[in-house]
Parts: sequence; C-alpha cells; structure tokens
Amino acid sequence: MSARPETPMLDRVTVPADLKQLSDAELTQLAHELRSETVSAVSETGGHLGAGLGVVELTVALHAIFDTPRDKIIWDVGHQCYPHKILTGRRDRIRTLRTKGGLSGFTKRSESVYDPFGAAHSSTSISAALGFAVARDLGGQCEGGLGDAIAVIGDGSISAGMAYEAMNNAGHLNKRLFVVLNDNEMSIAPPVGAMSAYLSRLYAGDPFQELKSAAKGAVSLLPEPFREGAKRAKEMLKGMAVGGTLFEELGFSYIGPIDGHDMEQLLPVLRTLHQRATGPVLLHILTKKGKGYAPAENARDKGHATAKFDVLTGKQVKAPSNAPSYTSVFGKTLVEEAARDDKICAVTAAMPDGTGLNLFAERYPSRCFDVAIAEQHGVTFCAALAAGGMKPFCTMYSTFLQRGYDQVVHDVAIQRLPVRFAIDRAGLVGADGATHAGSFDIAYLANLPGMVVMAAADEAELVHMVATAATHDEGPIAFRYPRGEGVGVDLPERGTPLEIGKGRMIQEGKRVALLSFGTRLEEVRKAAETLAAKGITPTIADARFAKPLDEAMILDLAANHEALITIEEGAIGGFGSHVAQMLAENAVFDNGLKFRSMVLPDIFIDQASPSDMYDVAAMNAEQIEAKVLDTLGVSRIGSKSA
Amino acid sequence: MSARPETPMLDRVTVPADLKQLSDAELTQLAHELRSETVSAVSETGGHLGAGLGVVELTVALHAIFDTPRDKIIWDVGHQCYPHKILTGRRDRIRTLRTKGGLSGFTKRSESVYDPFGAAHSSTSISAALGFAVARDLGGQCEGGLGDAIAVIGDGSISAGMAYEAMNNAGHLNKRLFVVLNDNEMSIAPPVGAMSAYLSRLYAGDPFQELKSAAKGAVSLLPEPFREGAKRAKEMLKGMAVGGTLFEELGFSYIGPIDGHDMEQLLPVLRTLHQRATGPVLLHILTKKGKGYAPAENARDKGHATAKFDVLTGKQVKAPSNAPSYTSVFGKTLVEEAARDDKICAVTAAMPDGTGLNLFAERYPSRCFDVAIAEQHGVTFCAALAAGGMKPFCTMYSTFLQRGYDQVVHDVAIQRLPVRFAIDRAGLVGADGATHAGSFDIAYLANLPGMVVMAAADEAELVHMVATAATHDEGPIAFRYPRGEGVGVDLPERGTPLEIGKGRMIQEGKRVALLSFGTRLEEVRKAAETLAAKGITPTIADARFAKPLDEAMILDLAANHEALITIEEGAIGGFGSHVAQMLAENAVFDNGLKFRSMVLPDIFIDQASPSDMYDVAAMNAEQIEAKVLDTLGVSRIGSKSA
Repeated sequence: MSARPETPMLDRVTVPADLKQLSDAELTQLAHELRSETVSAVSETGGHLGAGLGVVELTVALHAIFDTPRDKIIWDVGHQCYPHKILTGRRDRIRTLRTKGGLSGFTKRSESVYDPFGAAHSSTSISAALGFAVARDLGGQCEGGLGDAIAVIGDGSISAGMAYEAMNNAGHLNKRLFVVLNDNEMSIAPPVGAMSAYLSRLYAGDPFQELKSAAKGAVSLLPEPFREGAKRAKEMLKGMAVGGTLFEELGFSYIGPIDGHDMEQLLPVLRTLHQRATGPVLLHILTKKGKGYAPAENARDKGHATAKFDVLTGKQVKAPSNAPSYTSVFGKTLVEEAARDDKICAVTAAMPDGTGLNLFAERYPSRCFDVAIAEQHGVTFCAALAAGGMKPFCTMYSTFLQRGYDQVVHDVAIQRLPVRFAIDRAGLVGADGATHAGSFDIAYLANLPGMVVMAAADEAELVHMVATAATHDEGPIAFRYPRGEGVGVDLPERGTPLEIGKGRMIQEGKRVALLSFGTRLEEVRKAAETLAAKGITPTIADARFAKPLDEAMILDLAANHEALITIEEGAIGGFGSHVAQMLAENAVFDNGLKFRSMVLPDIFIDQASPSDMYDVAAMNAEQIEAKVLDTLGVSRIGSKSA
Repeated sequence: MSARPETPMLDRVTVPADLKQLSDAELTQLAHELRSETVSAVSETGGHLGAGLGVVELTVALHAIFDTPRDKIIWDVGHQCYPHKILTGRRDRIRTLRTKGGLSGFTKRSESVYDPFGAAHSSTSISAALGFAVARDLGGQCEGGLGDAIAVIGDGSISAGMAYEAMNNAGHLNKRLFVVLNDNEMSIAPPVGAMSAYLSRLYAGDPFQELKSAAKGAVSLLPEPFREGAKRAKEMLKGMAVGGTLFEELGFSYIGPIDGHDMEQLLPVLRTLHQRATGPVLLHILTKKGKGYAPAENARDKGHATAKFDVLTGKQVKAPSNAPSYTSVFGKTLVEEAARDDKICAVTAAMPDGTGLNLFAERYPSRCFDVAIAEQHGVTFCAALAAGGMKPFCTMYSTFLQRGYDQVVHDVAIQRLPVRFAIDRAGLVGADGATHAGSFDIAYLANLPGMVVMAAADEAELVHMVATAATHDEGPIAFRYPRGEGVGVDLPERGTPLEIGKGRMIQEGKRVALLSFGTRLEEVRKAAETLAAKGITPTIADARFAKPLDEAMILDLAANHEALITIEEGAIGGFGSHVAQMLAENAVFDNGLKFRSMVLPDIFIDQASPSDMYDVAAMNAEQIEAKVLDTLGVSRIGSKSA
C-alpha cells in the first residue's frame, strides 16, 4: 500500500461550510489534495475512479459557493460522488467504499443529508432537481431545508430521453434551477477553445442577463434579408451550431463551455450564476475523465472502474479468474452464432463493454448498434428490426431493461415480434448494490403473453440459450444470466437449441424435489451433498424455462415427492409464482403438497459480495439445506375444516 | 343515421397503388371524399375523429407518392389512422371500428400488411421507422418488402424522451428516413406564416441540399464580429429561433413548416423529399385537429374522441350514466383532500382530462403539473417532490406507468419515498383493446420492497383509498381503479384512511371463500347469489391490499374453508401469487387446500366491451360460479407419494 498523501488543507475541512472560509487559492489547493485523497482511497477499495477525478474542482466549487445541505447537489448516476463524500463528513469511511457495511459507491439518502437524492441509474438528476425546486416554491420541508437545486449530469447521461423530458418540463416551469453539463467526451458539442473561454469570463463578470439582451440586439446588426426574416435567420445558420441552442430552445439559459478544471473560470462563473439566475440555467463545463492521475487519463476507459491498484504505478491487483465470465461467454457465443446467420444483429444502450458486445461490434460493426443511453428506443428499435426480418439481440442489464418495460409490452410482446432479450446482471450483483440488482425481470417478463423466459444455470447452458434464442422466430424470448464468473464447466463447441419449455433432471432422489431456475443450481447441488450426509437425497431439476413451464416434469415432481421447493434469483411473482399457479390449477394442492418457493426477500439488499448478499437473501447452500429440513420436518399450520 | 356521402373518387380506390393513376387535382378531390367518409364512419361507431381529420391530406399524399406496403408508414399512437385504413383495403369494415370482432382503433400488424408496426402508446414511431430502415439496409426481409420508412408523429408525442432518443440515434446512423412532424397545436414551434410557406415551396422546387449550401454560405453575409466567431453566431441569435434547429442539431435535415392541408404544398414537397433525400429528414407540417368538420374544429378537444353522433349537427349520442366514473370520483376526492392539506400536489403526463386532474388543475393550478408525455420524468419528479416534503399524487394509466417503471423502482421504491400512485385504467378497458389493458401493474408494483398496493372494489372504496394515500407518509403507495362507471354505491362525505394491510369481510359463508382484489367484487357477489340458489353460500372478502397482505384474515379463510379462490383484474404474478406464496410459507398447502387464483389469461385480449373482454378472460359472474363448482366438485390430480 502506498503512503497516504499529505493533505493539510483537506484536513481543515470537516463539513462543506468550512469551505466558506477559504480563499480561491486555498480552494484550488484543496482541490489538489482532494484529488490525491480520492486516488489514494480508491487504490485501496477499487471502484469508480475516473468520473470522480473529473469533477474534483467542480465538487469544491459547488460546495464553496452553494449552501449545502440546504442547497441540493444531485450527482447524476453517482459514479463521480467520491470526492463529494470526502468533503461531506464521510472521509473517515471513504476507504470502505462498495464493501459490506461500508459506504455505497453511489449517492444514497440514508447515508448523508448531503445526498438529497440517490442515484445509480443515469439521467434522473434533472427531474430530481426540478422536483426539489418546485417543492421549495410550494413550501415543502425536508431535512437540511430547501434552497437551490443543482443537477450535475454527464454528456453521456444527457442523451437519455428522460433528461430531455426533464429539461422540457424545467424550461416550461421556468424556476431557478441549475444544470451543470459535465462534458468529458465532447459527444454533445465540440470544444470551442479560447474565444469561448473568453466569452465565458465575460459572462461571469457581467450579469448574463445582459448577454440575452445583446443577443436580441444582435438582430439589428444583421444584413437586410436576415432582418426581414429574423425568425428564419437562426435556421439559415444551421450547420454552424455549437450545442447551446438546443438547451436554449428548451428554455434554459446556456452558459459555456468553460474549463471545468480551471478554478479561475469555475468559481467566478458559478458565483455569478448563484447571484443572478432567476430561471433554469445550463452551465456547460469541459472536463477530462481521470484528470490528474496519469494511469487513469491514459487508460482506454479513463479509469472508469478499477480494482485495487498501486498508486505509484497504477497497476491493478485483480484476483485470478477461475472461469470465464457469463458476459464474455455471451459475447463470444453471439459472435459465433452471427457467423452462421447474417440476420443476427445486436443492440446495446451505451454498454458495449459491460454487455460483452464489444467483441460483436469488432467483428460485425454493421450489425451492432449502440443506441446511447436510450433503453426505450433500443427496445422498440429491436422490435422493428425483428418486424423487418432481422434477429435482434437486445442486450441489457436486468435493471436497465426496466427503462424499456413499456416498449417490451407494447412493441414486442403484443406484436409477438421475435426480439431476443439477453439479460445480464440477473440477480444480486455485489458491489453496485441494490440499484443494480436484477430482481424483477422474471416477474415482469414472464407475465407477458407469448414471452419465453429462460435462465442459465451455468455458462454452458448460456451457450445453448443463445443458440435457442437465435433459432426462435415465433415470438419474443429472453434469457438471463448473472454478473461474474461461470462455475467452470466445459463449454460446448457449439450451442444446441433447447426444446422450448423443457427442463432437465439433474439428480433423482426422494422425498423432496429441488427445482432450480438459474445459477442457484450450484448452491442446490452443495445443499444436496450435505443433505445426503443426513440421509436425505433430494431430487434436483433445472427448470431452464420459467415460461413456458415444463408442466409434465413439474407435475411429475409434485406427484412423486412429499415436498417441492423452487428457487430463483428473483423477487416474488416470477418462476415460483408460475409454478404455484400451475400446480393450483392442476389441483395439486387440493390433497396436500409441501410446496415452498425461495425468492429474493422483500427488502433491498445493500452492497456486499454476491455471496454475502445471497446470505442476506437466505439463498445459499446452507439456507437451502435448512429450508429442506424445515419443510420436511415441520408442519406449522395447515389445519382446515369445512 | 345520416345518408352516406357521395364518394365517386374514393370508390375508384381499392388499394393505395390506385392513387398512382390520379392527378393532383384528383388526389385533392380524393382527400375531400376521404374526409367525408371518415366523418360518416365515426358517426356510426364513435372513436377518435379529430386526429384522422387532421391528416386526411397527408394520408392521401403519402400513399400517392410512396410505395406502400413496401414503404412503411408508421402512424405514431395510431389515433389518426382511420383514413389510412379506409385507403388500405379496409373501407368495407371501417364501420366496425373499436367493436368486438371489428377493426382496431389503432394500427395493427395482424390486421393489414399496410400496418407494418402497431401503435397505441405514443412516441414509438421514429424508433420503429429507424428499425425498418436499418433492416432494409442489412438485407432483412418481410411481408410487402422493405423500402422507405416514414414516421408520422404529432407535436405532443415528440415531447416524449423516447422520440428524442430515436432522433439522436437516427441522426447518428444517418440513414434515409422520413419523420413527418404533424404539428396541430403549436406546442413546439410557433406558426411562421407566409414567408415560411414561400421558402418551403422553394425547397420543393429545388433540391433541398442546395438550401444547406445556402445556409453555409450565409456566414459570408454576416458582419465582421460574427464572421470571426461563426460558431458562436448561432448561439448569439438565441431567443429568435423557430423549432428546426433542434432537429438539425440531432442530425436531421429540417424542412418546413408547410401547410399540411394544402395539397399544392404537400405533394411537391413530399415528391422532392422522396426523390432526393439521402439521410434522415424531418418534414414539419402544420395541421388542424378536426379539420374540415365544424363540430370537431369547434370542440374544446377538437373532436379527439367522440361517441356516435349525428353528422349534420355533430350532436353525440351518449348512453345515460348510472353512476359517476371512477376517474371523476378520484379527481373530485383529490380536490377535497387537497383543500385540507396544502402539501398535496398532482402530476399528470399530458392527460389532465383522462385522469380527472382537470378539476384539480382548475382549483390548485400551482400544485398541478402536466409534465407532457414524459412518464419517466414524471415519476422521478414526484420522487423529488416527496423528498422535498410534498405529497405528490402521480396520476397515470396503468399501461402508461409502464413507461416509468425503472423510475418507480430506482427513484421511488429503493428510496422509500412517499409517492402516491393513482393508477387509472386498471384491468381491461374496452374499445381501446389490448394496448391499453392495465394487466401488469399489480405484479410489477407488488414485488417492490416497501410498496403498498391497493385496489378499489367500488367508488366509495376509491374515496377511502385516496384518503389513505394522502395520509401514508412512510413510503410509496399505489391504488388502482378501472375505466368506466362505478357500481352506484353511496359516496362517503369524506374518505377515511384505511388501516394498511387490512381487508374486509363482505359475507360469511361456508366451504368456499372468494377473496377479491378490485372491482370483480361485484361479479363475485352476483356469482354468490346464483350459488346460493344451488345450496352453496360462499364467504366473500375484499382484500383491499395486495401488499401488505391481510395475512390473518387470509389464513383464517384458508383454515376455515375447503377452498379459497382469489380473483383480480390482473395478470399472473400479482395478488394471487402473493397469497399463494404466503400460504405456502405458512405450510397451508402441506395438508391440502383447494386453492385457485383467477387472473387474466395468458393472451392479449382484443377490443370489445369490458364485460365481453372479461368473458374472454373467464372472469365474469357465470365463470366465477363455474370455477367454484369445479373447484369444490372435482379433484383432478393431486395424488402424491413419497
């Protein structure tokens, strides 16, 4: 471990109010130290590094000028909030980031009054800021009070429709509101250099309202044809635009772009805005992800997410892997299927790496579509691709597919279009915590008429399910698989399409049947081993399908066992509920069956290792064993009389 | 019934290809006749009139110039598709619109090859058009072939984030693609009059690419300070804009606005675009909703939706109502609650009338927010209002709340913020058909930790549930209620907050307990009457809560009856599944219980009267009765051995 950095200025800060006592030069020094502290902390914990380094100066400037926690800073997504946590009373716990019992890797209301609105999914910050601004004006009350609302949103996040919806509404309501567009990739507007910085400093010196008047006055400077058609003039200039106009059209005052790492620009501009703004303002700042830490700046992902690392060298300390990740197995398999079928194409919502589609994008760039953070559009785009005879794989994390749920219902399911949903991060995910837990997809997909829903029990099963989806043209089909490594089974040369609605028997046993859907199968096997030592040999089956169910297999299990226990990495309403409904309709409960359904519990589970999270969920081998013993041994209620 | 209009030109059209033979003058005549035929048809069926009348000329022009069904016209929402249906081989069935076995009120793939992509929810058309354009270029194949893709979207629909996401992606992909912005309310851009029409005619005569060059050349006409800072210039002109620039910034060529009722503008502009376009084009047309039929033009809603009417007078024939609608009871009750609590506020996504919030907006305009078609933003906005100490009622139809599902999970449920979800159109809705059926909300809400989920059994219960939601500050709470009239019960003077998680007994009986969640209670009562005549007196209970369940009441019902049957206006995974899970965990099935759960069947049900739709769903009184008899009388399987 490297020595901790010297941080004399940072050591003087206990709460953000302490920043009010510092000079601009001292604030600049504070930013330097805050950057070092952030690097040092993340080197010990791993986590999201690049985003935080990009907003160190902004974090200091916002807390210095605004009055937190009364003023609400809302960090979009939250990846960039580590420096903010250090400044807001959580420095002593910053080296527990993303660990069990430690600080969340995102903003979190329950963690601090300085986190007025939690995040983790993108593009919610402007909606949230607007809500606080409106609540303030309506006399709402909350902890810390209600002052200004400031959303900090990246140029990636602002591509999502939700951000546009929020700006559209904010422009209409015209309340004092700040949006800081943290532009670190130039994806919205090109950098415009010195003249723009010059203009921005001018804005900061003068009230920016005067600029508006100047702009209006500008029409008199135009040549005759333009003056006559003034409203037309702006459009005639199309093709020469910087990004600001888009925001202006949505009702925002647009300021920028300015250098987000230059305190001599940031502080005066923010002070002016703080003093003068009356309506919604968008401040466009240019930053570098990973700024100030060379290994991050030079990394392909700008240090987006990192394992623990050595501060001096930047070298990451990664645990050796025992098996390929489900994500990479999916990515590789899809490439192989696509080699055999030129109708296969793939869609990701801004996550080619996270979903394993980077491989596909390399090999088949014309068939791979990154639609930006735009799950709603992504799903419907896939629906139309399918209607046009293609075989689209809509590749999203379970929780992000929630963003496109209506489109799954309305555009895919109702039209029975053969979109293939490849659902990564199914079940509990570890360090990212509750916001990224893929808990609900089984329930929200399996109740849609015509949908086929599969879960892979291991990485070989995943290969077969990709093949199954590739050949299933009759309607929509989904398959889910978790974050992390597979269990280490041999991978088949090539996937074999599964028979739709057929499960597989893993082990024949007696008294109790364990019916698994997904990767809990490994824990079920372990539980079976310890149960065997106690004289109980459970039957084990892998359902493979939550929909359609393998009714024959399940009715057979019910008929031949005293107890039937389902297990799935999902919340109530999914696989177990479908099994229960089928059993009830077949009158299986009429004469008694010890039926249990192990599902995720009715709580949101905080970050920890996936295994620890499944302990909290009571879904590991030991707990499965206990469930079996409890079910077979105890009959707690169940009396009935007519 | 009025006499049918004379339509000699329309009578010559069997398929859209017939339009290719007509002169511009004849096409203009055809449009007149198509308008008359549309009015005549809707006068007999009722339905969405105003939208179709606004696009009569566009419909004729698109079919005359493009080559349908090879070219794909995608009507956003679909309210405006009746003239399209008349032109595309469905004239003989147009007087069956929105009735059982008749034509759908929306576009529908299964109905015609001329409907390449169905709709009903807004803002999906650009995503769909892009999907077809991409499929075309990738060699996809589908019925009718793959040519151009044309999305027709209203100025209301384009406010949704999804449309922005799609444009953002389309601009990036830069494929030939047409978006017709049908602007009938001026909510995006002001009308710009004669000069604009003049310019538009110029575009049509010359290749519009030349306009681009002209725009680029315009910079040389600028005075010196502007020329130096050319990139800055456009921004300096902010405040004078028409809407086009926004689209240009997203990568579209913007043409317009032109008069969408003037065939002399529409035809040449569309011909030019059809000949010359290479990338994405947005054609902005100005139209009048209800155009050409005075009673619609003069109506407040521009004839948006109408009952059957007399063509000469416009007078609608409405069935007398026996009870207030749930929607109006909700709206009235919320106003009353808001009079007592100034923290109550309300949010609608562009449906103040449909949700009954128009009353609230009138009385408390500063506390009522129409966020436009923007459910994602609307939900998160509510979350922040709640975080800011307000009591927001997020008022949306069940199917439209699907658009904000991730926000319900991520921003509301995980943060346990007390947003009140008022969910209208729960269950089957009648003439709007499958796309508007509120089937999934119980499942997708009740599996969220901390969520309270209620359903009103009648309009008096709804009054109490509004009061319950108003006082519930501990976390999110939802209550659902159907479209249409209440059952006619007396309304309480004032709502009384219900005890959370407590159901109510309706009738004590024997052998079988019927446990209802929602307005099937009325059918359950009817079934009980006929059962009584057969010597079976069922116990009846109203669960009120799907979450938290009234465990004591339900366990008591299970313990004291031979059979327990749940019924709900929702798909599998909801109330019945929660009851089954609770019973299983309490070992109630171990010794046998005739448990059944009546849920919506695993099909999408086409439009008919709600009662007819519930017949298809097998959830009316007769079918409940049959279910009881079947459950009590027959034990079909249920053998088991160890």
